[in-house]
Amino acid sequence: MNSNHIEIIGLIGATLTTASFLPQVYQTWKTKDVSGLSLPMFSMFFVGILFWFAYGILINSLSIVLANAITAISSFILVYFKLKYRNK
Amino acid sequence: MNSNHIEIIGLIGATLTTASFLPQVYQTWKTKDVSGLSLPMFSMFFVGILFWFAYGILINSLSIVLANAITAISSFILVYFKLKYRNK
Repeated sequence: MNSNHIEIIGLIGATLTTASFLPQVYQTWKTKDVSGLSLPMFSMFFVGILFWFAYGILINSLSIVLANAITAISSFILVYFKLKYRNK
Repeated sequence: MNSNHIEIIGLIGATLTTASFLPQVYQTWKTKDVSGLSLPMFSMFFVGILFWFAYGILINSLSIVLANAITAISSFILVYFKLKYRNK
Protein backbone atom coordinates (compact mmCIF):
# COMPACT_ATOMS: atom_id res chain seq x y z
CA MET A 1 0.00 0.00 0.00
CA ASN A 2 1.57 3.31 -0.99
CA SER A 3 1.38 6.52 0.98
CA ASN A 4 -1.42 7.94 -1.18
CA HIS A 5 -3.63 4.99 -0.34
CA ILE A 6 -2.77 5.37 3.31
CA GLU A 7 -3.67 9.06 3.22
CA ILE A 8 -7.02 8.17 1.62
CA ILE A 9 -7.82 5.86 4.56
CA GLY A 10 -6.94 8.70 6.95
CA LEU A 11 -9.16 11.09 5.00
CA ILE A 12 -12.11 8.65 5.08
CA GLY A 13 -11.69 8.41 8.87
CA ALA A 14 -11.38 12.19 9.08
CA THR A 15 -14.48 12.77 6.97
CA LEU A 16 -16.62 10.30 8.93
CA THR A 17 -15.62 11.36 12.44
CA THR A 18 -15.84 15.05 11.52
CA ALA A 19 -19.18 14.74 9.71
CA SER A 20 -20.60 12.64 12.56
CA PHE A 21 -20.79 15.74 14.77
CA LEU A 22 -23.11 17.54 12.35
CA PRO A 23 -26.24 15.43 13.06
CA GLN A 24 -25.55 15.84 16.79
CA VAL A 25 -25.19 19.63 16.48
CA TYR A 26 -28.32 19.76 14.30
CA GLN A 27 -30.38 17.57 16.66
CA THR A 28 -29.30 19.52 19.73
CA TRP A 29 -29.94 22.87 18.07
CA LYS A 30 -33.39 21.69 16.90
CA THR A 31 -34.59 19.97 20.08
CA LYS A 32 -32.57 21.86 22.71
CA ASP A 33 -32.50 18.46 24.45
CA VAL A 34 -29.12 18.29 26.18
CA SER A 35 -30.11 16.13 29.13
CA GLY A 36 -28.36 13.04 27.75
CA LEU A 37 -25.17 14.87 26.82
CA SER A 38 -22.27 14.71 29.24
CA LEU A 39 -20.62 18.11 29.83
CA PRO A 40 -17.33 16.53 31.01
CA MET A 41 -17.29 14.49 27.81
CA PHE A 42 -17.67 17.36 25.38
CA SER A 43 -15.38 19.75 27.24
CA MET A 44 -12.59 17.16 27.58
CA PHE A 45 -13.14 16.17 23.99
CA PHE A 46 -12.81 19.78 22.84
CA VAL A 47 -9.51 20.30 24.68
CA GLY A 48 -8.21 16.95 23.37
CA ILE A 49 -9.08 17.98 19.81
CA LEU A 50 -6.94 21.13 20.21
CA PHE A 51 -3.97 18.89 21.05
CA TRP A 52 -4.69 16.65 18.03
CA PHE A 53 -4.82 19.77 15.88
CA ALA A 54 -1.37 20.85 17.10
CA TYR A 55 -0.09 17.29 16.57
CA GLY A 56 -1.39 17.31 12.99
CA ILE A 57 0.49 20.55 12.26
CA LEU A 58 3.69 19.20 13.82
CA ILE A 59 3.66 15.93 11.86
CA ASN A 60 2.38 17.66 8.68
CA SER A 61 -0.72 15.50 8.38
CA LEU A 62 -3.39 17.25 6.36
CA SER A 63 -6.07 14.70 7.42
CA ILE A 64 -5.45 15.37 11.07
CA VAL A 65 -5.29 19.18 10.77
CA LEU A 66 -8.47 19.51 8.69
CA ALA A 67 -10.53 17.01 10.65
CA ASN A 68 -9.62 18.49 14.00
CA ALA A 69 -10.13 22.09 12.94
CA ILE A 70 -13.76 21.33 12.04
CA THR A 71 -14.33 18.99 14.99
CA ALA A 72 -13.01 21.67 17.36
CA ILE A 73 -15.74 24.02 16.14
CA SER A 74 -18.50 21.35 16.34
CA SER A 75 -17.56 20.19 19.81
CA PHE A 76 -17.26 23.79 21.02
CA ILE A 77 -20.82 24.42 19.78
CA LEU A 78 -22.04 21.35 21.71
CA VAL A 79 -20.38 22.55 24.92
CA TYR A 80 -22.04 25.94 24.37
CA PHE A 81 -25.48 24.32 23.78
CA LYS A 82 -25.09 22.15 26.87
CA LEU A 83 -24.33 25.19 29.04
CA LYS A 84 -27.08 27.25 27.44
CA TYR A 85 -29.90 24.68 27.52
CA ARG A 86 -29.14 22.57 30.54
CA ASN A 87 -31.54 24.41 32.83
CA LYS A 88 -34.47 24.34 30.43
CA MET B 1 10.63 20.59 18.87
CA ASN B 2 11.90 17.04 18.53
CA SER B 3 9.81 14.01 17.61
CA ASN B 4 9.49 12.87 21.24
CA HIS B 5 7.88 16.17 22.18
CA ILE B 6 5.58 15.91 19.18
CA GLU B 7 4.54 12.39 20.17
CA ILE B 8 3.78 13.65 23.70
CA ILE B 9 1.38 16.24 22.26
CA GLY B 10 -0.31 13.48 20.25
CA LEU B 11 -0.56 11.31 23.35
CA ILE B 12 -2.13 14.15 25.37
CA GLY B 13 -4.71 14.59 22.61
CA ALA B 14 -5.24 10.83 22.49
CA THR B 15 -5.68 10.57 26.25
CA LEU B 16 -8.16 13.46 26.44
CA THR B 17 -10.35 12.51 23.49
CA THR B 18 -10.34 8.85 24.53
CA ALA B 19 -11.02 9.53 28.20
CA SER B 20 -13.79 12.00 27.31
CA PHE B 21 -16.05 9.12 26.25
CA LEU B 22 -15.92 7.54 29.69
CA PRO B 23 -18.13 10.16 31.47
CA GLN B 24 -20.60 9.88 28.59
CA VAL B 25 -20.70 6.07 28.77
CA TYR B 26 -21.04 6.25 32.56
CA GLN B 27 -23.80 8.89 32.47
CA THR B 28 -25.76 7.02 29.80
CA TRP B 29 -25.37 3.70 31.60
CA LYS B 30 -26.49 5.27 34.90
CA THR B 31 -29.41 7.38 33.64
CA LYS B 32 -30.43 5.39 30.52
CA ASP B 33 -31.20 8.87 29.13
CA VAL B 34 -30.36 8.65 25.43
CA SER B 35 -32.92 11.13 24.13
CA GLY B 36 -30.30 13.83 23.48
CA LEU B 37 -27.84 11.46 21.77
CA SER B 38 -27.85 11.36 17.99
CA LEU B 39 -27.75 7.81 16.57
CA PRO B 40 -26.34 8.96 13.20
CA MET B 41 -23.58 10.75 15.10
CA PHE B 42 -22.40 7.81 17.15
CA SER B 43 -22.72 5.23 14.37
CA MET B 44 -20.83 7.38 11.83
CA PHE B 45 -18.30 8.21 14.51
CA PHE B 46 -17.76 4.50 15.25
CA VAL B 47 -17.14 3.63 11.59
CA GLY B 48 -14.83 6.65 11.21
CA ILE B 49 -12.83 5.52 14.23
CA LEU B 50 -12.24 2.13 12.57
CA PHE B 51 -10.66 3.96 9.61
CA TRP B 52 -8.51 6.07 11.95
CA PHE B 53 -7.40 2.86 13.65
CA ALA B 54 -6.31 1.37 10.29
CA TYR B 55 -4.58 4.67 9.42
CA GLY B 56 -2.68 4.59 12.72
CA ILE B 57 -1.42 1.06 11.99
CA LEU B 58 -0.37 2.04 8.45
CA ILE B 59 1.59 5.14 9.51
CA ASN B 60 2.94 3.42 12.66
CA SER B 61 1.51 5.97 15.07
CA LEU B 62 1.11 4.50 18.51
CA SER B 63 -1.00 7.48 19.69
CA ILE B 64 -3.50 6.97 16.91
CA VAL B 65 -3.72 3.18 17.25
CA LEU B 66 -4.20 3.17 21.03
CA ALA B 67 -6.63 6.08 21.17
CA ASN B 68 -8.82 4.72 18.43
CA ALA B 69 -8.87 1.15 19.75
CA ILE B 70 -10.35 2.38 23.04
CA THR B 71 -12.62 4.97 21.42
CA ALA B 72 -14.00 2.30 19.06
CA ILE B 73 -15.13 0.32 22.11
CA SER B 74 -16.63 3.37 23.89
CA SER B 75 -18.51 4.61 20.85
CA PHE B 76 -19.79 1.10 20.09
CA ILE B 77 -21.17 0.93 23.65
CA LEU B 78 -22.95 4.27 23.13
CA VAL B 79 -24.54 3.06 19.87
CA TYR B 80 -25.66 -0.08 21.73
CA PHE B 81 -27.14 2.00 24.61
CA LYS B 82 -28.92 4.30 22.17
CA LEU B 83 -30.56 1.33 20.42
CA LYS B 84 -31.37 -0.41 23.68
CA TYR B 85 -32.84 2.53 25.61
CA ARG B 86 -34.35 4.74 22.92
CA ASN B 87 -37.88 3.42 23.40
CA LYS B 88 -37.88 3.72 27.16
